[in-house]
Amino acid sequence: MIKVAVNGFGTIGKRVADAVSAQTDMEIIGVSKTRPSHEAMIAQKRGYPLYIADISKKESFEKAGMKVAGTVEEMVRAADIIVDATPGGVGAGNKAMYEKYGKMAIWQGGEEHEVAGYSFNSSCNFADARGRQFARVVSCNTTGLCRIIKLADTAFGVKKVRATMVRRGADPGDAKRGPVDAIVLNPVTIPSHHGPDVQTVLPEIDIVTTALVVPTTFMHMHIIQMDLKETGDRGKFLKMIADHPRIGLVKGYTGIKSTAELREYASDLGRPRSDLWESCVFEDSVSIVDGKELYLFQAIHQEADVVVENVDCIRAMTGGASTAEESVAMTNRALGFETI
Amino acid sequence: MIKVAVNGFGTIGKRVADAVSAQTDMEIIGVSKTRPSHEAMIAQKRGYPLYIADISKKESFEKAGMKVAGTVEEMVRAADIIVDATPGGVGAGNKAMYEKYGKMAIWQGGEEHEVAGYSFNSSCNFADARGRQFARVVSCNTTGLCRIIKLADTAFGVKKVRATMVRRGADPGDAKRGPVDAIVLNPVTIPSHHGPDVQTVLPEIDIVTTALVVPTTFMHMHIIQMDLKETGDRGKFLKMIADHPRIGLVKGYTGIKSTAELREYASDLGRPRSDLWESCVFEDSVSIVDGKELYLFQAIHQEADVVVENVDCIRAMTGGASTAEESVAMTNRALGFETI
Amino acid sequence: MIKVAVNGFGTIGKRVADAVSAQTDMEIIGVSKTRPSHEAMIAQKRGYPLYIADISKKESFEKAGMKVAGTVEEMVRAADIIVDATPGGVGAGNKAMYEKYGKMAIWQGGEEHEVAGYSFNSSCNFADARGRQFARVVSCNTTGLCRIIKLADTAFGVKKVRATMVRRGADPGDAKRGPVDAIVLNPVTIPSHHGPDVQTVLPEIDIVTTALVVPTTFMHMHIIQMDLKETGDRGKFLKMIADHPRIGLVKGYTGIKSTAELREYASDLGRPRSDLWESCVFEDSVSIVDGKELYLFQAIHQEADVVVENVDCIRAMTGGASTAEESVAMTNRALGFETI
Amino acid sequence: MIKVAVNGFGTIGKRVADAVSAQTDMEIIGVSKTRPSHEAMIAQKRGYPLYIADISKKESFEKAGMKVAGTVEEMVRAADIIVDATPGGVGAGNKAMYEKYGKMAIWQGGEEHEVAGYSFNSSCNFADARGRQFARVVSCNTTGLCRIIKLADTAFGVKKVRATMVRRGADPGDAKRGPVDAIVLNPVTIPSHHGPDVQTVLPEIDIVTTALVVPTTFMHMHIIQMDLKETGDRGKFLKMIADHPRIGLVKGYTGIKSTAELREYASDLGRPRSDLWESCVFEDSVSIVDGKELYLFQAIHQEADVVVENVDCIRAMTGGASTAEESVAMTNRALGFETI
Repeated sequence: MIKVAVNGFGTIGKRVADAVSAQTDMEIIGVSKTRPSHEAMIAQKRGYPLYIADISKKESFEKAGMKVAGTVEEMVRAADIIVDATPGGVGAGNKAMYEKYGKMAIWQGGEEHEVAGYSFNSSCNFADARGRQFARVVSCNTTGLCRIIKLADTAFGVKKVRATMVRRGADPGDAKRGPVDAIVLNPVTIPSHHGPDVQTVLPEIDIVTTALVVPTTFMHMHIIQMDLKETGDRGKFLKMIADHPRIGLVKGYTGIKSTAELREYASDLGRPRSDLWESCVFEDSVSIVDGKELYLFQAIHQEADVVVENVDCIRAMTGGASTAEESVAMTNRALGFETI
Repeated sequence: MIKVAVNGFGTIGKRVADAVSAQTDMEIIGVSKTRPSHEAMIAQKRGYPLYIADISKKESFEKAGMKVAGTVEEMVRAADIIVDATPGGVGAGNKAMYEKYGKMAIWQGGEEHEVAGYSFNSSCNFADARGRQFARVVSCNTTGLCRIIKLADTAFGVKKVRATMVRRGADPGDAKRGPVDAIVLNPVTIPSHHGPDVQTVLPEIDIVTTALVVPTTFMHMHIIQMDLKETGDRGKFLKMIADHPRIGLVKGYTGIKSTAELREYASDLGRPRSDLWESCVFEDSVSIVDGKELYLFQAIHQEADVVVENVDCIRAMTGGASTAEESVAMTNRALGFETI
Repeated sequence: MIKVAVNGFGTIGKRVADAVSAQTDMEIIGVSKTRPSHEAMIAQKRGYPLYIADISKKESFEKAGMKVAGTVEEMVRAADIIVDATPGGVGAGNKAMYEKYGKMAIWQGGEEHEVAGYSFNSSCNFADARGRQFARVVSCNTTGLCRIIKLADTAFGVKKVRATMVRRGADPGDAKRGPVDAIVLNPVTIPSHHGPDVQTVLPEIDIVTTALVVPTTFMHMHIIQMDLKETGDRGKFLKMIADHPRIGLVKGYTGIKSTAELREYASDLGRPRSDLWESCVFEDSVSIVDGKELYLFQAIHQEADVVVENVDCIRAMTGGASTAEESVAMTNRALGFETI
Repeated sequence: MIKVAVNGFGTIGKRVADAVSAQTDMEIIGVSKTRPSHEAMIAQKRGYPLYIADISKKESFEKAGMKVAGTVEEMVRAADIIVDATPGGVGAGNKAMYEKYGKMAIWQGGEEHEVAGYSFNSSCNFADARGRQFARVVSCNTTGLCRIIKLADTAFGVKKVRATMVRRGADPGDAKRGPVDAIVLNPVTIPSHHGPDVQTVLPEIDIVTTALVVPTTFMHMHIIQMDLKETGDRGKFLKMIADHPRIGLVKGYTGIKSTAELREYASDLGRPRSDLWESCVFEDSVSIVDGKELYLFQAIHQEADVVVENVDCIRAMTGGASTAEESVAMTNRALGFETI
């Protein structure tokens, strides 16, 4: 059993903890939280030992009825590998601690590539993770881009990618961030940083991205166009999507045309937290224009798609599976996850 | 086993079907749908026989891979009792069919009280349902008002209620209804119809209500003020809420101050579809002003709170339980439902 | 003085009426409304004679204190030219009436190109309008696309255009339409109809468009990419935009990065109804990638950009100006309109 | 001519500057800004001398083409009176500077009552301002409450007020603040601070308030209930509202039922920045229940209603008018302001 600690039990951390916990070859030995909160209570309910960075706050946890197992440093020592899901930019500061105790660690996409020196996506570069001490699971948007670009590249060869990310303003549980009634260019400059981020995983891909933020809470929407090397074949590509273990196909007959309807579907399917771990490609949008231009819309659940990647990354680094196919199948099976 | 049919497998109907299905003393013998859609597919996955009103559409269902069990009329004949969850105003038109086959039926709050001649709330008038052919489970807002008013009335006597309902604009899965950026008076006139609707269950209560709509999707927020007959006791009332099987207390230490954070909590708790079947009273808001005025905020999950009431109403009408306490306990246990 | 009637005094109609009224060579002889409302009251205040389609409703107008000048048919007879700003799809039905009285008419982009057989944009095909009885001013999005594509084509030659329209869900004064919390693919299929609509004005342009709807009220945002025939020159193109009488440049030093901040700016400038008649190109977004790919963001005020086009179209059809430059200058001067 | 400086040329400050500038008995001698921005450019266009707190930033203004007149301290010295419209909490820190130069100053409602020791509302306590060095114009919500409570108290005597404020989440030009999809209790505790704030102007009034925040940008909505000393008379009260120079009546026949439609109306009326300086009471909502309970909805434009109060407050303090009626009439006339 691989002993996993989750440093930062927030939006991503709590999902990774549940997903790791569902696997048969790994276990959660602790999670960390800075303040008592409803999430700390959930950790308690799930039976995850609760560690805190600032031990002087122990009393405030105990007053709220929560047991503190120790400090974050103690948690790190007890683990084989740490999934660092602290807020973007904070994780880099934890590297020294992981190095001090000689532990493996995985950061999220909020950190720079350089923190780990290696960026991971299970559909693209699983094998390269073997034997590394550090890795970074790329952001939700980059994960979604990597999966579909790799697939199209395998199918027809990809000469150039142009993609726009229409991003959600706040997560569903966030009552503070906006905007309320605005489309925000983020950034105003073109191209955005997402293209170079894809290249940390797929260095050969020529890609230009743009990004904006809108007042929604659930899923980013990608408008993707790819110049293909060979003439595209819509039927073939749809079949490849349907067969991909991390990309789902939103069928036309479901009538689903929006992120809201997709959430309802995930919720009706009984997915925990309505999570869509798969990229969701809209079947009716997949088009080949002028033979060599592929177009499609895909929706990316910002809280979920990287969760399964973290589980795979743990196996890739520790040697818990020898191929991506094997690990992805193990992860999906343990979660009862069949793509839509 | 009570044989239950759900006519209208939408927002409420699909939840009632799942809740009925989880009970040990009743079963779903069929659900109806007018069109193939992602919800029809869910019915199929759950193993609920799918009936359709217009048999000429059978082929369109079959083309989408869904088996049609027969017509709605056949479903009605096969059932002991029908939960009518068709859209507001449509249900009344089905009464003749239920009468023709001598079946019991339950309508939702979108229909007028007069359709059934009896309006139900398990915390208020369970016993009166016994032996009736028809009942109406009051709307989500009225259900929420009835629960808390009855509780306060039991505790201190209620002289007068003033309540404002700040309503969500669209359900989470609805991508059409607005508003986008507006507070809408609905209705402009004061008082709104919610007061008289409460009186269909609690005829003695003096109540004035106002209502408006805002651009959110999850939960209505109630601002409630009650003039009490006796001096109020905050501690006592908080304890009564904590003990109530259908009212939850949002504790201060959770840091939850909004509907978004409440949804996150429900989702983290693993509730199916993030459903909050209980009224959610904010602990820190419960106040006694000038001795005899009670104030509080409560949030009502518009898709969920009536679901458990429908299950109780089935038992109340069929004699499946002899008291409200018994039925509520059975319903909650089967759902694994403990209030927050 | 050209006698102009505005059939349909709503979002576009009221703005066209005010813009026509501000010109020295044309006048408003009447506007039409179907119901007494705040907008009918505004027509009254502005001194526009109020005509109604259904004369039986005269009394309801008079009860609200509004004078009715006659029927829509009487208004048409009194006019030289009618600007038809009735809701999309309704305008086509009025064609017979305009033909019966031999009047010139201009429809909006909600009607099909075939209704008029000629689609107008003052920056592209002003001269072709001369002598026509009927014209159609293309929609706000198509207007915005035509202006910038024509400019780039003039500068560097345009080989191919790829554009995404992120559209507002409801107009600012609309309290009904949504969505509340959804990104809606509209349409799901690719390409959208906007490309062919551009080709009604610029038939030689190769263009593929996609469109989605988000929960905002003010402005559509366009993400535009153009393959150029010649190597692009950013400085030259920025200068051409700055010099264009219908395209404005949102300067970097203003700090404006969103539609909300743009509205604030329009409002601070004292623009009537905060109207942005110009396309608003974000200076910092204008980029030349790999020499021959032009990228930019532009925001289009859906209520305003076609208003000035209608005024020009009146002149183009009636011969009130001999060139686009002359008419555009007259229109802008009368409105005190200098681009941002 | 009273020489007025506006310290803080933001949402409120820029409006106060324009309103002061429109008066015949006062003039703007300077406004301050901390950074070059679109608002600084607007100040420049209006001809308001631009002062800056940190003179080392002079160059950054000049690079953006804006002339800097001097430091804030120099502006203060040149003024008779300063309207401090710096962000909430910042203004208090400027008091020492105003004292140092012996200048009169007016703060906004974001500061505590204690900063000035006197809180102003032109409909309630105009005369008390005479001769004071410092005053505070109460917040937009408190201003709206004071106006209507004072009116009802004059008409029928007010025994008790219960009011709920449904607040906008962000201003129209703000692209950062949320919430996106949440109703936020702000504060969770009852009562909110608004009641005591009303009592800084109307100390005799018994009032309990609650407040929440929703995802809209334009106007707060108040649900107000008052226990009256005498039996209420709806017709009489409607007439008193119609006659009030700072309260408007949203007539039923306009069809306006929401904040969005109210904004459209203000915009159609040609109001600068669509500003509604008046409280907007919905005619159809005004109700007398059980003889002695008055109910109504009123909408308050958060950016505008205090602007005219600031102008009156300047006159009240400097003796520029001897009665509230006189000042209010002067202010309104200069703005061309007739209530809706």
